[in-house]
This record gives sequence, structure tokens and C-alpha cells, in this order.
Amino acid sequence: MAINGHTNGSGPASSDRFDPTFTKRVINTMGPNMEPRTRLVLSSLIRHLHDFAREVELTNDEWMAGVNFINFVGQTSTKTRNEAHRVSDVLGLESLVDEIANKIVAEGDVDPTSSSILGPFWSPDAPFRENGSSIIQDVNPGGRVCRMHGTITDLLTGRPVPGAVFDIWQASANGKYDFQDPNNQTPNNLRGKFRADENGKFWFYCYHPTAYSLPTDGPAFQLINLMDRHPMRPAHIHIMVTHPDYKGCTTQLYPSDDPWLETDTVFAVKDDLVVDFKPLKGDDKAVLELEYNVVLSPQGYKGKLA
Amino acid sequence: MAINGHTNGSGPASSDRFDPTFTKRVINTMGPNMEPRTRLVLSSLIRHLHDFAREVELTNDEWMAGVNFINFVGQTSTKTRNEAHRVSDVLGLESLVDEIANKIVAEGDVDPTSSSILGPFWSPDAPFRENGSSIIQDVNPGGRVCRMHGTITDLLTGRPVPGAVFDIWQASANGKYDFQDPNNQTPNNLRGKFRADENGKFWFYCYHPTAYSLPTDGPAFQLINLMDRHPMRPAHIHIMVTHPDYKGCTTQLYPSDDPWLETDTVFAVKDDLVVDFKPLKGDDKAVLELEYNVVLSPQGYKGKLA
Repeated sequence: MAINGHTNGSGPASSDRFDPTFTKRVINTMGPNMEPRTRLVLSSLIRHLHDFAREVELTNDEWMAGVNFINFVGQTSTKTRNEAHRVSDVLGLESLVDEIANKIVAEGDVDPTSSSILGPFWSPDAPFRENGSSIIQDVNPGGRVCRMHGTITDLLTGRPVPGAVFDIWQASANGKYDFQDPNNQTPNNLRGKFRADENGKFWFYCYHPTAYSLPTDGPAFQLINLMDRHPMRPAHIHIMVTHPDYKGCTTQLYPSDDPWLETDTVFAVKDDLVVDFKPLKGDDKAVLELEYNVVLSPQGYKGKLA
Repeated sequence: MAINGHTNGSGPASSDRFDPTFTKRVINTMGPNMEPRTRLVLSSLIRHLHDFAREVELTNDEWMAGVNFINFVGQTSTKTRNEAHRVSDVLGLESLVDEIANKIVAEGDVDPTSSSILGPFWSPDAPFRENGSSIIQDVNPGGRVCRMHGTITDLLTGRPVPGAVFDIWQASANGKYDFQDPNNQTPNNLRGKFRADENGKFWFYCYHPTAYSLPTDGPAFQLINLMDRHPMRPAHIHIMVTHPDYKGCTTQLYPSDDPWLETDTVFAVKDDLVVDFKPLKGDDKAVLELEYNVVLSPQGYKGKLA
């Protein structure tokens, strides 16, 4: 019986000195009754995990630090705090998965609005509100009110998309979302869904967004510290635009003068998502204005890379 | 400002269609004040994680399943249950880290005893016991008592190593270790440390080991099911042999007739760790005998691969 099939050659050459059959053996232990896609994904995961360990010659202490870190991640998570989500964001993984899912290069001159990551603060419970109303339920003295408006159009025809739903959520001026704020914001404060009118237009009041730090008391922040990085997200407004006939667009908008754009701790900034807020005169409800137009691609449209 | 540096060429060729600068950008966000080793390890981890995601074109649902899985792992762990450790074992990672740490190919004809993984059940609290005594504190009716003995010798000189400590721990005949058994075993049942005598010899009574399943109520078992694998570990005895002048040897011993040797769910079996238990006559305390001799390499000895 040769469990390991050691026929190891000589020479100290880096990771060649390890049993070349080990990873295959782990993968081959998988049984016949797997979904083919699951087999593909887990085989690749095991290969990359093992290649990583061999490449850096991972030590026992480093491995155990990783084991403890993963337990700490789960133990930090609660119903309103998803630390594994946050750690994957800090490593760039959610942003990469978003790119993989949404990469469309249009055939014409116009590109659809870029997607960006959902993040852990979207809520399925946001209420519909009337165009012209405000998502600000709890006034924050530091908040600068902004009149936001725009048109939702079809990538191919340029025509408006009446009935499209524009779902917006944002942190308050203290950098906290409703359900994570120790000051107990009113549920659905700074959240709302707006239905585009017959001209594809939406308009409402919100806050100019505020940059904030990721929580500084958990494993994601430990990881950020290990990497000598800052924990800041640039100020941003989350939006999710949907219509049954179109591919939904989940994304984020960033003020162009934010200092954290290039080093966003979750790597979610893209050029066409950077916007200019303008001073607003003649509206006693707001001091700023933001126009943002959204371009949706029809369901099934694949672009040049189909 | 070009955040992403997109200069994407054409062509649908697999993962080439993704932003080639993204992973470098994530890695380059790390600051100057990192330990060089930490930078090396985390850079490699991020590269492999991203390569994995691009290679399989990881979907949003798959990513989120992974996020939920990691949270579940931490939430399943307790003071006496380390689920992240177990998951890493099921993926072969602890066994690989053990190989990386302990790979020594001797210059002479004799190899040092192979190491194997520690597993989650070692305890620092095991008591010293006298040679000739028993580690069985709680009799299990299904247990077959074995007289175990052997000699601990030096790899280079072949001479005995008096004073070496032989630490043994094993599950009872129900497949449970003392601190995980719902039947409340006596603490340190089936654990003990024995000091080798002036001839490097140790001897005591233990049980023939029993194969057991990993716990079937947590994320590690979910992963095993996803992979269509069985959750069985072959029967085994854990040992940890130490002496100040020698490289410690943590390993496991397996009965040669165990049906799970080739598919051990944590990949910890090696050829020289497979042993034969023999019927024992003339000792009214035991029905089986196991002789196992341990070969230790001196501290600092690197073998052929130095």
C-alpha cells in the first residue's frame, strides 16, 4: 500500500520538494454524486488553497492564526453585522465577483451604467415613496440636503424606461445606516424606492453622502491593520435600479472631491460612478443638486463579449 | 483620474476579459509598515483568491454561499469545538502545512518517524503517568485493551533517548475524546505522558483505537456532503514525542486493517504510521500488543534538503 505515492526527486527547488500527488489525491476523494459546477468550484478552490500554502511555505503558526481568524469572523457576525462579507470586501473579492457578473462592453458608443458592490446594508424592506418626497426621516444637523434627480434610459434605443424602480440607501451624516446606528434611527431612515414617471424620470431629497470608517472592533479591522491600510470608504450613495425588461443595476455614486476615491477600502469605485454635486438656489428644501442618469441594458443583452 | 486603468482589449478569451490591474491594485493598497513576511503571505493569499474567482467565474450566489459558510463556521465553534480547524483538515490544509513544516529526508538509510497533524483534541493538561500504568480511567465495554511499548532512538546514532516524553491521547471505544463526550468521561481519560527510561523505553496500557465520524451537525459535514465524501477518520492513536535536544514528533498511528486508510477524511495517513496490533498471551490486563519505535532527529538537523 502506498498511500502517498512518494517518489520524490532530489533538489531543494522551492515547492517542488513537496509530494506532487497530494492535491490531486484530496480532489480525487470527491465522490461521483456531485453537481458538476460544485466539483469545478471546489476543485479549483482546493488547488489554489494548496498552491498558496506551498508557495509561501505556510507555517503551523500562520495556519493556526488563519483558523482562529475564521472562527473570530463568524463569532463577530450578528443579524445586523456580516463580518465575513466585510472581510471579503476588504480583500477585493466582492468587487471582483461583481466585475465577473456584470462585465458588459457595449457595441455602440454608450455603455450601461457600471455596477458596483451591494455591500452589507441593503434592505428588502425599503418603502416606496412619491417622487418629490424625501428619504430623510431623522434630521441630522450635519447633513447637507441634496435634490437628486435623473432619467433612466435604454442602452440600445436611448428611450426612457417608465416604471423602472430606483432604490436608494445611504448612511446618515454620522456615517451610520439605520439598523446599525447605536442612536436608533427610525427604521428605513435614508432608504426609499422611487418609480420612474412616464418620461423615465425620478426626483427626491437625500443627503450629500458622508465618508465613514468600517467598524474598528472586529476581524476585518484587524486584517486592515495587518495590511497597514486605512479603514475608510469614500462617501457614497447606494442605488439599485430595476425593471422587469432590463438587467438590474446595483451600484454606488461617489462625490468627485472625496479624498478616499483611489484607496476605497473595499475597491468599489469606478470612473463613471464619480459625480459632481452642485450648489442649488431657489429650493428652500435643499442646498445641493445631483443629476444622475442611469443607462440599463435589456435582459439578455451580452454586448461585444457575448 | 483613471481609477481602474481599463484598457481592456477585445476577445472573449476566458479570464483575460477581466481588468488585469485589479489584483495588483488591491495588493498595492497595503502600506509600508507591514512585516515583510505578512506582506508576502497576504499578497499571495489575495492573488490566489482572485485567480480562483476569475478561473471559475465565481457567481454572486456562490460568493454569498461562501460568506454564509464562513460565518456558520465561526458560529459553530466553541471552547471545545474548533470548526475552522476541522474545515481546514477536510480540505487537506493542515496535513499540507504539516508536510511543509516537517519534510525531512534523511541522509542515511533510516528516516525519522513521519509527522502527522495534531488535530483539535490534544490537551496541554495530560498528566504524567508511570510506565506500566494504564491511560484507561473509564472502562468502555467495547474497548480492547492493548499493551503498547517501544523505544525512542536518535536518527543519527541509533542510540536510545532516555527522558524523552511520550504523550498519547485517543478517543474511547465510542469514538469520543474526554472533553467532547456527552457521556462525561473523566477528564484526561485516555490521555497520559510517559517518560522514556534509561534505555529509551516506554510501556503502558491503552485501547485499540476506534474509527469515528467527524461531527455530522456542522459546516464541515455540510462541506463533506457537498463533495460526496464520507466523514470517517480511520482508527488512530495520537502521539507527541518530545525531548529538549530533538525535533518534536507529533503524529498518529493506524491499524493496518482499517478500511478508511486510503480515504481518511483529513488526509493524515502515511505509510510508516500504519501498524500491526498482535494478539497478546500471558498478560491478564490486555488482549493485544503494539510495539512502536520512534526515531527522532536532533534539533537543527535538516537532512538532504537543507
